[in-house]
Amino acid sequence: MSYQSIKEECLVANLALPKTGLVDLTFGNVSVADPERRVFAIKPSGVAYDKLTAADMVILDYEGNLVEGRLRPSSDTATHRCLFLNFPGIRAVVHTHSRSAVAFAQAGLDLPCLGTTHCDYFHGPVPVTRTLTPDEVAGDYEWETGRVIVERFSGMNPLDIPAVLVKNHGPFAWGPSAAKAVETALALEIVADMALKTLALNPSVMPAPGHLLDKHFFRKHGTGAYYGQPA
Amino acid sequence: MSYQSIKEECLVANLALPKTGLVDLTFGNVSVADPERRVFAIKPSGVAYDKLTAADMVILDYEGNLVEGRLRPSSDTATHRCLFLNFPGIRAVVHTHSRSAVAFAQAGLDLPCLGTTHCDYFHGPVPVTRTLTPDEVAGDYEWETGRVIVERFSGMNPLDIPAVLVKNHGPFAWGPSAAKAVETALALEIVADMALKTLALNPSVMPAPGHLLDKHFFRKHGTGAYYGQPA
Amino acid sequence: MSYQSIKEECLVANLALPKTGLVDLTFGNVSVADPERRVFAIKPSGVAYDKLTAADMVILDYEGNLVEGRLRPSSDTATHRCLFLNFPGIRAVVHTHSRSAVAFAQAGLDLPCLGTTHCDYFHGPVPVTRTLTPDEVAGDYEWETGRVIVERFSGMNPLDIPAVLVKNHGPFAWGPSAAKAVETALALEIVADMALKTLALNPSVMPAPGHLLDKHFFRKHGTGAYYGQPA
Amino acid sequence: MSYQSIKEECLVANLALPKTGLVDLTFGNVSVADPERRVFAIKPSGVAYDKLTAADMVILDYEGNLVEGRLRPSSDTATHRCLFLNFPGIRAVVHTHSRSAVAFAQAGLDLPCLGTTHCDYFHGPVPVTRTLTPDEVAGDYEWETGRVIVERFSGMNPLDIPAVLVKNHGPFAWGPSAAKAVETALALEIVADMALKTLALNPSVMPAPGHLLDKHFFRKHGTGAYYGQPA
Repeated sequence: MSYQSIKEECLVANLALPKTGLVDLTFGNVSVADPERRVFAIKPSGVAYDKLTAADMVILDYEGNLVEGRLRPSSDTATHRCLFLNFPGIRAVVHTHSRSAVAFAQAGLDLPCLGTTHCDYFHGPVPVTRTLTPDEVAGDYEWETGRVIVERFSGMNPLDIPAVLVKNHGPFAWGPSAAKAVETALALEIVADMALKTLALNPSVMPAPGHLLDKHFFRKHGTGAYYGQPA
Repeated sequence: MSYQSIKEECLVANLALPKTGLVDLTFGNVSVADPERRVFAIKPSGVAYDKLTAADMVILDYEGNLVEGRLRPSSDTATHRCLFLNFPGIRAVVHTHSRSAVAFAQAGLDLPCLGTTHCDYFHGPVPVTRTLTPDEVAGDYEWETGRVIVERFSGMNPLDIPAVLVKNHGPFAWGPSAAKAVETALALEIVADMALKTLALNPSVMPAPGHLLDKHFFRKHGTGAYYGQPA
Repeated sequence: MSYQSIKEECLVANLALPKTGLVDLTFGNVSVADPERRVFAIKPSGVAYDKLTAADMVILDYEGNLVEGRLRPSSDTATHRCLFLNFPGIRAVVHTHSRSAVAFAQAGLDLPCLGTTHCDYFHGPVPVTRTLTPDEVAGDYEWETGRVIVERFSGMNPLDIPAVLVKNHGPFAWGPSAAKAVETALALEIVADMALKTLALNPSVMPAPGHLLDKHFFRKHGTGAYYGQPA
Repeated sequence: MSYQSIKEECLVANLALPKTGLVDLTFGNVSVADPERRVFAIKPSGVAYDKLTAADMVILDYEGNLVEGRLRPSSDTATHRCLFLNFPGIRAVVHTHSRSAVAFAQAGLDLPCLGTTHCDYFHGPVPVTRTLTPDEVAGDYEWETGRVIVERFSGMNPLDIPAVLVKNHGPFAWGPSAAKAVETALALEIVADMALKTLALNPSVMPAPGHLLDKHFFRKHGTGAYYGQPA
């Protein structure tokens, strides 16, 4: 099987979605790129997770051409492709409708950084995008969804804040591998749940102080990291 | 076994209810019609899901006469029958007391359309019915429950918004098959949960814009649909 | 084994508590009476559910004397005994710290009747007791807990509202059998969860109308009941 | 294997964390001390629970020197060590990011004592620490986290209130054994969940009265305890 490695990585990550509780019904998808060959594997559209095989994964190139596959790719494919083209350094994208993250996306609010669980994954608030215009929705909708994500990250490093909330829609997360991107999508849902409960207790709560944010993020990321085992 | 096909479809869908978490105890039921023969199969009343067999399903005709079955049909049977008679094009009805949908029904509020998860299933808010009058409750209560649902859909297409919230009671969902009606009942509970969390964050949140609603609904429904695999 | 029938009924019901999710750790207990012999079986104190056997159940008489058993009975035994003495017609008592019912008990609020799920089990709000005085707590605390429950039901029929919320503590439910009392304790937690969500959406929500309450309660209880299968 | 007893006790307790639902991903750790030998066992950093063995546990002395182990200890090790040194009488420390307890920590609020479930474990509110200063975070951060916990317990007995909420971070719990410390961490999450729901119903709710708090705490603790079976 050609492209077997990314197809299998993509399958394993897609199967992880319902197991983690992140995804109800078929509301989620994962893609995995091979940046050197400029192709990516993605879940076929609307297929139940318990029926998926590695051979079902669809391969497209970075220009959006079908390279291999018998099935129609996820309806969100153009959004994934836009992120691979614009966020160098990422190899996988995860989209879910996980409920607490969706609540912030529907409320139109950035997910604030309220504590160390958040800081361990995201170096600042997880931003919400602007509303797409009628023209953007009438045009190449899924590609435009990617464009507003990229626009929102203007001046920000997508590797330091590896997720976004698409307004009135839901979260996308990304990372260096499919497993890490799924972990980030799960961490996002957890910190969104914690933030919902925190805001219920104290609607005017202040963000975690910047020195704590830096400490926790860089405890896990970059050259000074000391969390986990040495590679 | 006569009517075997709809009895088995009805059994499978009833068994799906507790598995999805939609139903506690015996708080739910599914019916499946054969519109050509003008009969439907429905769960017997108050029987535990783990004891149900296809042979336990009760068959009634569209006039409410018992056609086949040893057990008493669901106490909500007349509501199901009223929907089969008034909503041409539906083949299955699901009733649950799923908790977040019940919260909107008890609060007396339409479930607003706040994001794409909702738009994928319902082309607008899911409406709540008016309170039944004392006379309606004292009369043929379950039939009158169906009547207020039909009244609430006056001028609306029940195939575009395939669910309702009965005031101070709970949700009914419907569709072209029992599996699809159960999926819709589950999607309803999920979007109700998301809406509860969204309203907690932002009590004055605006609905998703109309162009986004149309895009997502018609991405999945009608002749221009492109979600999922070709039939 | 003497008193085998009530010991086994008591065991089965105690084991049901953690399975339903009603009980965390060892925060719950069930008792089952034999009213003719004026004795009851109750869970031993602080024993993990996965270690319980029927032989571990403790038998006491209605005056509180130990009749049989090697283990110390539940610390809440005197509350159960007080209910058996004062509420004729009940055969089983369930005590849990289920979380949504506890929230109403801690908030000091009656659980209002907001919809048919509630009406199916309780013919009106589930009442909260008054605070125990320092003298009552310093005295025979668990017996006095029973006394304030009985006081709260003055003028009410405990068979029509088979549960109570003890202020700053949690729920007790009762019924004609241990299985039915556990079902009622579960229904109480479910309707408390629904009420929490309803009040979050609409803090000034009105109770379900009286004609709907009567209809649903008497659809399931008394001589005109037509829910379920004929006995 | 040397130190086998505390390594195994530590392993069993770490494995209990994901089973109880207290811990997502790898967000938690347990340590177990041998106070006579002034050493403790702790989970290695960032290792998935399903891969852990007793031999993976790291042994350190009370001065923080590595005594035995191939892996890097938990990044929170210095916090655990600070508690062992300053809270005589404890043998185990548990750290989690359990969601409702984190909500109080992020909101900067003590967890109030609202009912008997709380009183059974904690003789008063569970306190939240002050914010660490930039200097404290820039210095020996994890040790300083322990210092602010110890500072917060000035004048309080850590055996009567065996848990704390670290501001913008999360809970630590402790006890005479790893199993008891995990039970306390679980009870903390349960009462935090109950308190969140109670405060949603009644934001100005009063704490449980002092006579009830004393009664329940001393029903389970100290020489007058009568909960559970005699030792």
